[in-house]
Amino acid sequence: MTIYLDNSATTPMCKPAVDEMYKMMTDRFGNPSSRHEAGLSAHTAMKNARNKVAKAVGCLPEELYFSPSGTCANNTAIFGAVRLMRRHGNRIITTSLEHPSVNEPLKYLESSGFEIIRLPADASGKISLSALRSALNANTILVTMMLVNNEIGVINPIADASQLIHQSGSRALIHCDAVQGFGKLSVKPAKLGVDLLTVSAHKIHGPKGAGALYVRKGLHLPAYIMGGGQENGLFSGTEATPAIAGFGAAAAALPDLTTQMNQMQAIRAHLLSRLSVSKHIVINSPADALPYIVNLSVPGIPSEVMINYLSDQGIYVSAGSACKRGHRSDVLSAIGMDAKRIDSAVRISFSRFTTTEDVDGFADCLLEGIPRFLR
Amino acid sequence: MTIYLDNSATTPMCKPAVDEMYKMMTDRFGNPSSRHEAGLSAHTAMKNARNKVAKAVGCLPEELYFSPSGTCANNTAIFGAVRLMRRHGNRIITTSLEHPSVNEPLKYLESSGFEIIRLPADASGKISLSALRSALNANTILVTMMLVNNEIGVINPIADASQLIHQSGSRALIHCDAVQGFGKLSVKPAKLGVDLLTVSAHKIHGPKGAGALYVRKGLHLPAYIMGGGQENGLFSGTEATPAIAGFGAAAAALPDLTTQMNQMQAIRAHLLSRLSVSKHIVINSPADALPYIVNLSVPGIPSEVMINYLSDQGIYVSAGSACKRGHRSDVLSAIGMDAKRIDSAVRISFSRFTTTEDVDGFADCLLEGIPRFLR
Repeated sequence: MTIYLDNSATTPMCKPAVDEMYKMMTDRFGNPSSRHEAGLSAHTAMKNARNKVAKAVGCLPEELYFSPSGTCANNTAIFGAVRLMRRHGNRIITTSLEHPSVNEPLKYLESSGFEIIRLPADASGKISLSALRSALNANTILVTMMLVNNEIGVINPIADASQLIHQSGSRALIHCDAVQGFGKLSVKPAKLGVDLLTVSAHKIHGPKGAGALYVRKGLHLPAYIMGGGQENGLFSGTEATPAIAGFGAAAAALPDLTTQMNQMQAIRAHLLSRLSVSKHIVINSPADALPYIVNLSVPGIPSEVMINYLSDQGIYVSAGSACKRGHRSDVLSAIGMDAKRIDSAVRISFSRFTTTEDVDGFADCLLEGIPRFLR
Repeated sequence: MTIYLDNSATTPMCKPAVDEMYKMMTDRFGNPSSRHEAGLSAHTAMKNARNKVAKAVGCLPEELYFSPSGTCANNTAIFGAVRLMRRHGNRIITTSLEHPSVNEPLKYLESSGFEIIRLPADASGKISLSALRSALNANTILVTMMLVNNEIGVINPIADASQLIHQSGSRALIHCDAVQGFGKLSVKPAKLGVDLLTVSAHKIHGPKGAGALYVRKGLHLPAYIMGGGQENGLFSGTEATPAIAGFGAAAAALPDLTTQMNQMQAIRAHLLSRLSVSKHIVINSPADALPYIVNLSVPGIPSEVMINYLSDQGIYVSAGSACKRGHRSDVLSAIGMDAKRIDSAVRISFSRFTTTEDVDGFADCLLEGIPRFLR
């Protein structure tokens, strides 16, 4: 028996995505830039994939650019925005809960003389709109904020933040890393009020190796990866056509978000009810977090110990993010959690394929493990 | 009937690569950064792929970093080298025959104040070693040269060039874009004398969506794509595990290079002999070019017309590179070819799966087409 509850790290691929990739790998191997039939058929497959992902994102196909990963899309959004806007100022505003693919580019820019303002989060992990208001000045060229935090599931009020930025008269571009929200919440860029938005295939049961960047129509973002001019110049390099077609299939296979959200609320409620019998477990995710992510601690049992024990039983969860091995969570620190709780944090993350039985298997195992390690 | 002779644009995937990718997409979908069994099994698959590709490249596994594409690897090599070396100078030497994934980053650097020296090619398209000797100065921080040109198949004397650079006492790093040579010639970095070398999966019957950068042991190249620290920090972003595993399988499936080269010499000789009956055809590739690539012109018949005619007959070739649609070849200009010959250039490129029958089919069709369009 295996129970996979690490869907925020990556998701198992859905069958339509696997089938589509297989077809691309065998029948449609041409280079989409080639002008013969083998190229055109790959080109058509990419066009179809773009339509499907754009529909799921809620934008025009021509506003959606395929990238090799969410990370590449975030790097391109940030460095591209800076190249476009740097004559207007050098302040960039972000939150203290961002993914490393946003944090690391910003640290690099900080070392090159840009001023990075990291908005504090309140105890529930949300960005503070009043702090945002205070941070905005005439020098601000970019605001980058994640929609859903990958470690605790906090949902940021992006639409409110964008409105505030626009009302302030700021010319800052707004970027949203929506990787953890896409396929779960509406990420429609026009509704969120953002200029740039990042999504990724492998968090929605698509393949690893494909992401996308939404760029608002009319905004001419300079390229960060340069070369043959693929993706209208924004992401050069022969397109990963199998992964891109798989992304399209995964996007088209997304069920109704509201129905799915209700299911997840029920799954989450079931888990919390099962865990409520133990006084040793504390829930780190706020009550209004995305129900797909439940971060919890059993203070006194290090994350590693718990994760290895669960893995030995065939239950796969993680300690915070999969993206930064062996590193104490900046996110949990940022929301003011004490070290003991951080060091025992475990993240359980669901997908639409998660069942009540999976949750029961996890809860049984966790509850059984606690007295074994806690003495 | 289809005859695919556009293998320098991209190759059909070999069965071991397809099978390996399918396995990764279904059984081994974990995130290689995850510490549970699902992650470890993906991690192991990546380690195996790294061993296989490193063996084919001729380097240590720890010197090989997977990238999303050859383009990403070239960008990282160039921008990383510049960040590492810029305190030592601002001159970069390259050739006039490079791929856009080298040219475009260099143009960007030129606009930021770096001095780019583009070595002229002789009539056979090779870089001139004496021009290289004259261009080297104390300010030179990087020399980047391709091994095999993608449009005409010219093989550059990289080992001689590296030796010359080292003997001059220059501290310049040496990068080689070996995408078109890998799997056909030895690209062993220690033998070529280079610090950085780029390869790609989809030119050796692996998938689109995976490349690799060799970085000489001891050289600490700064990252260009920043984030969660994957690939030892050099290429952040969740690894495209299916494509990477497919890359490993394709590398392991490479046959003996000498045997394969002899086959290609025979295929090429057969083609040239078939085409020698027509006085309208001129061969643009030099006699000592890589036999996998034959660039030819039928002056008076525009490339587009010929390619479309051949494509209608199920024969897939290209006009120069697949990477820059609708753009007159810089490479053919650089070797001093006249406009009429450039505008009618057609590139035929073989793979180890190309047969004499394929070549005959192409030759029959081409010879039949010439009188039709040439009046």
